[in-house]
Amino acid sequence: MADKAQLQEAIKTQGEVVRKLKSEKASKEQIDEEVAKLLQLKAQLGGDEGKHVFVLKTAKETLTGKYGEDSKLIYDLKDQGGELLSLRYDLTVPFARYLALNKITNIKRYHIAKVYRRDNPAMTRGRYREFYQCDFDIAGQYDAMIPDAECLKIVYEILNELDLGDFRIKVNDRRILDGMFAVCGVPDEKFRTICSTVDKLDKMAWEDVKKEMVNEKGLSEDVADRIGEYVSMQGGQDLAERLLQDPKLSQNKQAFAGLTDMKLLFSYLELFQVTDKVVFDLSLARGLDYYTGVIYEAILSQTIPASVSTPAEQNGADEAGVSVGSVAGGGRYDGLVGMFDPKGRKVPCVGVSIGIERIFSIMEQKAETSSEKVRTTETQVLVASAQKNLLEERLKLTSELWNAGIKAEVLYKKNPKLLSQLQHCEETGIPLVAILGEQELKDGVVKLRNVASREEVDVPRADLVDEIKKRTL
Amino acid sequence: MADKAQLQEAIKTQGEVVRKLKSEKASKEQIDEEVAKLLQLKAQLGGDEGKHVFVLKTAKETLTGKYGEDSKLIYDLKDQGGELLSLRYDLTVPFARYLALNKITNIKRYHIAKVYRRDNPAMTRGRYREFYQCDFDIAGQYDAMIPDAECLKIVYEILNELDLGDFRIKVNDRRILDGMFAVCGVPDEKFRTICSTVDKLDKMAWEDVKKEMVNEKGLSEDVADRIGEYVSMQGGQDLAERLLQDPKLSQNKQAFAGLTDMKLLFSYLELFQVTDKVVFDLSLARGLDYYTGVIYEAILSQTIPASVSTPAEQNGADEAGVSVGSVAGGGRYDGLVGMFDPKGRKVPCVGVSIGIERIFSIMEQKAETSSEKVRTTETQVLVASAQKNLLEERLKLTSELWNAGIKAEVLYKKNPKLLSQLQHCEETGIPLVAILGEQELKDGVVKLRNVASREEVDVPRADLVDEIKKRTL
Repeated sequence: MADKAQLQEAIKTQGEVVRKLKSEKASKEQIDEEVAKLLQLKAQLGGDEGKHVFVLKTAKETLTGKYGEDSKLIYDLKDQGGELLSLRYDLTVPFARYLALNKITNIKRYHIAKVYRRDNPAMTRGRYREFYQCDFDIAGQYDAMIPDAECLKIVYEILNELDLGDFRIKVNDRRILDGMFAVCGVPDEKFRTICSTVDKLDKMAWEDVKKEMVNEKGLSEDVADRIGEYVSMQGGQDLAERLLQDPKLSQNKQAFAGLTDMKLLFSYLELFQVTDKVVFDLSLARGLDYYTGVIYEAILSQTIPASVSTPAEQNGADEAGVSVGSVAGGGRYDGLVGMFDPKGRKVPCVGVSIGIERIFSIMEQKAETSSEKVRTTETQVLVASAQKNLLEERLKLTSELWNAGIKAEVLYKKNPKLLSQLQHCEETGIPLVAILGEQELKDGVVKLRNVASREEVDVPRADLVDEIKKRTL
Repeated sequence: MADKAQLQEAIKTQGEVVRKLKSEKASKEQIDEEVAKLLQLKAQLGGDEGKHVFVLKTAKETLTGKYGEDSKLIYDLKDQGGELLSLRYDLTVPFARYLALNKITNIKRYHIAKVYRRDNPAMTRGRYREFYQCDFDIAGQYDAMIPDAECLKIVYEILNELDLGDFRIKVNDRRILDGMFAVCGVPDEKFRTICSTVDKLDKMAWEDVKKEMVNEKGLSEDVADRIGEYVSMQGGQDLAERLLQDPKLSQNKQAFAGLTDMKLLFSYLELFQVTDKVVFDLSLARGLDYYTGVIYEAILSQTIPASVSTPAEQNGADEAGVSVGSVAGGGRYDGLVGMFDPKGRKVPCVGVSIGIERIFSIMEQKAETSSEKVRTTETQVLVASAQKNLLEERLKLTSELWNAGIKAEVLYKKNPKLLSQLQHCEETGIPLVAILGEQELKDGVVKLRNVASREEVDVPRADLVDEIKKRTL
């Protein structure tokens, strides 16, 4: 027990070291090194104690060193008791932590939840600081590219079925990028930062990207130009095959492995019938540090009319309007789970994150311009009456319908006018009205009215549920 | 424009006043007063500017003065740019703010999302610091007690259908409580604090509650005893009628209005057939400040076996085990929306909050003790093969099934053994296996196997989708 107390003391001290470095804005490398020591100490403690801390709190340590240059977007929380806390930045890192702490080696799951970014919001493009993400991930040691292909199939299906217009899914591989940087002559320590610059090619012209590489990141023009040649390449399985013949690239171990997998991936995508939208694009980089293999990003071709967007949001957009940009992205991250495991055990993962709020904002704009009314409820029938003093009968019938699984509504008024009951149906798109009156009650029937056609039929009360079900299939 | 700039300056200054008071831990009354001034200034500013601030950030001001003694459970966030921020405490206050800022006067909606409390977690009872709530609310000016009755019907339905064992829904009314305090002789300014003490009756014996009233809150023994008589009363419509005859209580305007509504509510609950579980209980208080009328709380009778709970969680529990306690609660809050409206326009609301995590933890415990396996996927069929080198054929068939809307899975292995494919079905409860082999491919059929019965039939490939649908209805 003395050892444990010593270890706890050491963790406390090391935690203070980390916090001090952070408050002094020390270099990322220095902080990461001390955080690694802290995690190692916590891993040594092991058992329930360490786990407890992890399970109940999302410590800022969890997020440190995962997001590369995006780290500045993490929402910090006020320290509540000696720990640095932040708001969840994405769903991938928490998923990896969950797998490691629960020793899960095989899982396939989706997750819809909010994440937070200290970014500049752009409302018309559906970019907020707090927003929902929808993630799908496959974790486990499997044969190459099969789960990766399934992720791409899912993105394809979603974008296709939601009918959002034309789209493309760009695919690349971190190993191909790294191999490409190596054969172009980028120094090893600059791979990540050059990767971030390449990632800007979707928003910036090559000229400006090159300028950043040369002027800010210190590459020679030669090296930048060689990168420029590669990143202009786009294709499919054919491009992978062609690059496998590239004398320089194919000699690089990383690039060779990436290109071989890319070729295999496209053969599976062919079977899944999605190759019409998937493009192998060497300019796709994605900023996050945790990717280790295949990466991808889905882009809608559709633009938002210029009249809807604000000038600030039109930066870099063409005259026709603002591009919605990326609506889904992801890739393979085989090292992330191991970073949370005390013994560093790896669980290979591949996943995709769908930007559902952006997709929603497009669907809303589409609905607004279309003449078709979007229903916000699934109510099948409104229980109404044409006469006064029938509230109790209305409530009784509503309850009967609810108990039978019918989606029924009733106006919360003692004596609503028939007209306002019918108007409510027209406004909200309720297709049927069940009308009660003295006569109907006497006859044991309900008058069932079709709101659109205004047709009315008397239905025996015992048959009402079946009749409503038949008409609202 | 000069006026606007002045107003903005005034808002900034007033914001600093509020922050200073808070940092000095000034009294709640003093802070509330200054916050009110701040809100008034912001309301004067009006227009897009004020709205913008509200829409993008949940300022701590939003939560101040809404939760009574529970305010200490709000998770504060670190100030990100001159504003005090906190994590969402419940879904009711954000809902009210949403209505006010979007000028919505009629809505009925449910909302499932996370909320945060700085509370002591109790894992076995499903109490965490971060947890999901599921709220249902009806907003709008309607005839008395009709939406209130619907909320109770919904709680009844949920608890009934989830088969969580016996339960009770306690109902009371803030106006009845206030009237009761008045006729018992509680000074006006002590209503809220005495209300909080009464609220503890579900966890503490009357003797201890009385002690708190007398020793801590300064009531005389007489007054406490008079309260004690009322709060021991339970009943239904009959109790409401009896108390309407109570010479003291019926003379109090507030109590009279509350009792009249309670009587009406029970007449509607009778029509909804839920009175077997709903109890009018004068000891129900609920701690939150925003309730103005009917309040209710649903309590499961079931207990968690003592062996599962930790000693710390057994505080106040009987020998048999730990009570799960309240799993739903809510009430009427007619004043909350008006607090966010610049002109104070009121929108009456009634709602209920379901403690879905507590309900989940009970259902999980039930599932663990039952022999029946809980499926975690809805997969209808696994696409398998008995021979090697058929991965491509498996992927092709899987894609066909996906495209036809069938929930299909395939193992991510090049050459999995048939046995491990069948084992996967047994472990995860997949009912059917579609088996491909050289012979089947030649014959244009698929061998469809029922996992449970081990029966196999050859199905023509063109009929496979229909056959799977028929068997997995």
